[in-house]
Amino acid sequence: MNTVIHKINQPKELRELNQAELPDLAKELREFILDTLSVKPGHLGASLGVIELTIALHYYFDTPNDLLIWDVGHQCYPHKILTGRRQEFDTLRQENGISGFPTREESEFDTFGTGHSSTSISAIVGMATADKINNINRHHIAIIGDASITSGMSLEALNHLGSTDLNVLVILNDNSIGIDPSVGGLKKHFNNLENDSSIFNDFGLNFLGTIDGHNFDELAHALTKSKAIKGPKFLHVKTVKGKGYQKAELDQVKWHAPGLFNKATGEITTFEKPKSYQDVFGETMMDLLSNNSQIIAITPAMVTGSNLVKCQHNFPDRVIDVGIAEQHAVTFAAGLATQNTIPYCTIYSTFLQRAYDQIIHDVALQNLPVIFCIDRAGIVGTDGATHHGYFDISYLNSIPNMVIASPSNEKDFKNLLYTAQFTKKPFAIRFPKETIEICKEDYSYEKIEIGKSKRITDGNKVAIFSTGNFTPRIQQILKANELEEKVCLIDFLFIKPLDEQMIKIVALKFDTIISYEDGIINGGFGDAVLKILNQIHYKGNFKMNGYPDQFITHATINQLYKQLELDDESILKFIYSYL
Amino acid sequence: MNTVIHKINQPKELRELNQAELPDLAKELREFILDTLSVKPGHLGASLGVIELTIALHYYFDTPNDLLIWDVGHQCYPHKILTGRRQEFDTLRQENGISGFPTREESEFDTFGTGHSSTSISAIVGMATADKINNINRHHIAIIGDASITSGMSLEALNHLGSTDLNVLVILNDNSIGIDPSVGGLKKHFNNLENDSSIFNDFGLNFLGTIDGHNFDELAHALTKSKAIKGPKFLHVKTVKGKGYQKAELDQVKWHAPGLFNKATGEITTFEKPKSYQDVFGETMMDLLSNNSQIIAITPAMVTGSNLVKCQHNFPDRVIDVGIAEQHAVTFAAGLATQNTIPYCTIYSTFLQRAYDQIIHDVALQNLPVIFCIDRAGIVGTDGATHHGYFDISYLNSIPNMVIASPSNEKDFKNLLYTAQFTKKPFAIRFPKETIEICKEDYSYEKIEIGKSKRITDGNKVAIFSTGNFTPRIQQILKANELEEKVCLIDFLFIKPLDEQMIKIVALKFDTIISYEDGIINGGFGDAVLKILNQIHYKGNFKMNGYPDQFITHATINQLYKQLELDDESILKFIYSYL
Repeated sequence: MNTVIHKINQPKELRELNQAELPDLAKELREFILDTLSVKPGHLGASLGVIELTIALHYYFDTPNDLLIWDVGHQCYPHKILTGRRQEFDTLRQENGISGFPTREESEFDTFGTGHSSTSISAIVGMATADKINNINRHHIAIIGDASITSGMSLEALNHLGSTDLNVLVILNDNSIGIDPSVGGLKKHFNNLENDSSIFNDFGLNFLGTIDGHNFDELAHALTKSKAIKGPKFLHVKTVKGKGYQKAELDQVKWHAPGLFNKATGEITTFEKPKSYQDVFGETMMDLLSNNSQIIAITPAMVTGSNLVKCQHNFPDRVIDVGIAEQHAVTFAAGLATQNTIPYCTIYSTFLQRAYDQIIHDVALQNLPVIFCIDRAGIVGTDGATHHGYFDISYLNSIPNMVIASPSNEKDFKNLLYTAQFTKKPFAIRFPKETIEICKEDYSYEKIEIGKSKRITDGNKVAIFSTGNFTPRIQQILKANELEEKVCLIDFLFIKPLDEQMIKIVALKFDTIISYEDGIINGGFGDAVLKILNQIHYKGNFKMNGYPDQFITHATINQLYKQLELDDESILKFIYSYL
Repeated sequence: MNTVIHKINQPKELRELNQAELPDLAKELREFILDTLSVKPGHLGASLGVIELTIALHYYFDTPNDLLIWDVGHQCYPHKILTGRRQEFDTLRQENGISGFPTREESEFDTFGTGHSSTSISAIVGMATADKINNINRHHIAIIGDASITSGMSLEALNHLGSTDLNVLVILNDNSIGIDPSVGGLKKHFNNLENDSSIFNDFGLNFLGTIDGHNFDELAHALTKSKAIKGPKFLHVKTVKGKGYQKAELDQVKWHAPGLFNKATGEITTFEKPKSYQDVFGETMMDLLSNNSQIIAITPAMVTGSNLVKCQHNFPDRVIDVGIAEQHAVTFAAGLATQNTIPYCTIYSTFLQRAYDQIIHDVALQNLPVIFCIDRAGIVGTDGATHHGYFDISYLNSIPNMVIASPSNEKDFKNLLYTAQFTKKPFAIRFPKETIEICKEDYSYEKIEIGKSKRITDGNKVAIFSTGNFTPRIQQILKANELEEKVCLIDFLFIKPLDEQMIKIVALKFDTIISYEDGIINGGFGDAVLKILNQIHYKGNFKMNGYPDQFITHATINQLYKQLELDDESILKFIYSYL
């Protein structure tokens, strides 16, 4: 009988409860989240772990006047439910529904958008500084996990905060796990934090001790006390990821975002899934690590997400998780590359943005053979605006010495990963979180010629240049509509260097060339093609397709394609308009 | 009488000296650097501070077999002199001369290029990991300053290192100053480091204590001892920036890179310099800070370089130095922008690369009105490849919501800085370290229309689209050669949004359009223009000029322009070829 939760539409109603009612609310909130997420998939574990903390924060602080920031929004579901979004909660991560992360435009309680980790302390220090200048007196709180706080920008922010007198409370939500178990030297320190000496004192913060984040009495005491202390302060809260749902507590990696599940039995619904780029990546890396002892895989806290679990199990010394530390990951790889090893640096497209300077300054400028395996390239679907990986072509294409490849099928992907080890150059391979076109023949690894494109269909009316996952989609559209004799489809496995020879040949023959890419259109593949067409004074029509100059929201990939007029139907219509 | 230094061409000769001879060598090395830098300008202070440390490292370790990395190469001059480059030392930072930073292609003793700060620990951890995998047993040492070690990626690397058993020695060269005095909460901690408890223990490193970095006995003891200790360890070395040259010790900011000076008198040669973009920036920020109390200037450790000294003196609460922390600086600014303040985030173009993700995720995605004042845009001259700022147009142009402006004269620059505060959008203003075309008339601040270009000359044969500092240069070339009636020169103050209307008007009239930009050509201004020309089916010639797809070395700006065929003569020749 959910009797408390339905009374709470806003935190001010929460604050009207008796303290004794909070445990009941916690129980109901936990059930509510489990009920919803069992049928509408989302990030379960982190949210179950912060239920008591969330209730206590809104109970003891005067939100939204007091400012709360939840670092990496995984943990924001209880917050969303308590701040006016309970009734929309079952639209989570769906088209036109609420976002899976805090989002400023969604609610005044979401003070800062936090899809990427480790931004919360910087942002709260900014807000508190503004309030100081504007003579506004209130509380500023950032809640950050133990995997996120060791990321560089969190530590930069702590160093700044520690030198100020700002009224900021940083809460370390320590559950010893990010998506995978936390790593690094500080992990041990967090396990041994004592009340009077910690790294946070060294940074200049007032350390308020360690409490049990599921105990309302301890929360009440600590939060009330913190309100009376001026200046920057730090509270260490121990929580259990997946708290209150036994299966989730016992296998925290699996239950981070379990998909659909049966709440009663704890059985996760499994689907027979077609082979994905991630499957191919994992199995190919196993082969490469087995066959070349110089190869080292690096991941910044994405062992599971990047499908490196099996590799790590088999090659623990050569699959290195450096924590949420993209900047370090890339320069660490550069250091490796100087000493006779071959680093495969595996980072999601959107997170590699964190290491843009290191790609330029430490890798490309020194022309070091670091191989970037760029996962989640293109649009990623329900994670939404903060997680789409559509900038990478643009941000890599302007960097000298880079090779940029985007495979369209299993065979090319495997061979690209294989070839990269011999290339002795910075080498980026971008691939989406999507189904891959599998290779039905037997084959063994073979080297791919760098910069070579491939003719897929040999039609004679219109040419299409495409790259990555657009190629098999277009190929299928052509086939289904019997357009193979009208359309000349070229797959550009390499975006840089571009196959200029092919572009020239096609330009001589076709009055219309159309490009498709899984990236933002400014500075992307189409722009690079256009530059060559301009150089050769092409006088035909060149039409670029890709993502427009705007941020893209959350929805399934197919829904987003439709919104962007890049679904199959729109592509077909576009092609027809030039036939 | 320099008797020792001339015997040392390589560290192995250094290692043949008696320990008792080292102080004499230090004295001679100090004189040698002073003699050279007084006539060939360079980074003086940092190098004077590490003379004893450098000698000791090469004396007690077996370089180049043992691997040394000097973080931010400012401190590498004694190292360069002792490792085979004494005789070329007077070519420092000059065209075809040796680089001002460690450079892999220059020497096997320069194990890693370090123009940007805080990369050394990541790189050395990479090297040590590779050696472990390759079963190579040797020492790995990173030497890093107290301003650099508090940067995020250093701390990420320490966190990784602390969880390993790698044979790495991190030396903190603590002189309490970067280019400006160090800031942040950790600064106090460093001042109070004791031998048995420090933040470095928290990270999991073996803390070897604090020593005097100018005392050879202490250096001998500590370095010898460290060699016997396995695993990651940390040595705190106190030094004095400018050590041994009184003037430099007393005014460390001025003597960081003093330019020409009289060694005997300590008088710095001053030149009457024409007004620069930096001069205009400093005086305009004074006006803006005076007139609008919501404006806040942020700098990551570049108060002096960004010409904010006077502003900081007058508005200490609203000119905030966050330390070498570009990621934090940008998200801190985003936090400020959410709470009714107007942040002017002032960062060199090359260092803003460190905050690329924060620009996207924290500023642009939330459409927050952070104003980016991007100093040292374009090529910067003698600092060379690591410091040129030629990627910014490309990396910003693909980001939705951004305004990108590049002023060509004092009046526009001042008015842009003025206008940005009202625009309520992410707003980037890029400007070079060069002389600015001054405004002779009296004027008051006025708002500039966003996206509007300006016709400078109204010739009728050829059109030139240019942006930033290329505009006054081309204007002068046209004037000097009486080409104003032949060339229609348009100044694109805004790169984004582009003045499409102007492009269309010009395209209708001219068969040839030429673009000039102070940036790398892939994904830049020319590409953006070309995209519009393609949309309107322009059939004339479009010729782009900018920096090619390669890294550019060090030399004066004019020498580099010549190498790149962008000097006045080349520009004139290029224009003539289309007349």
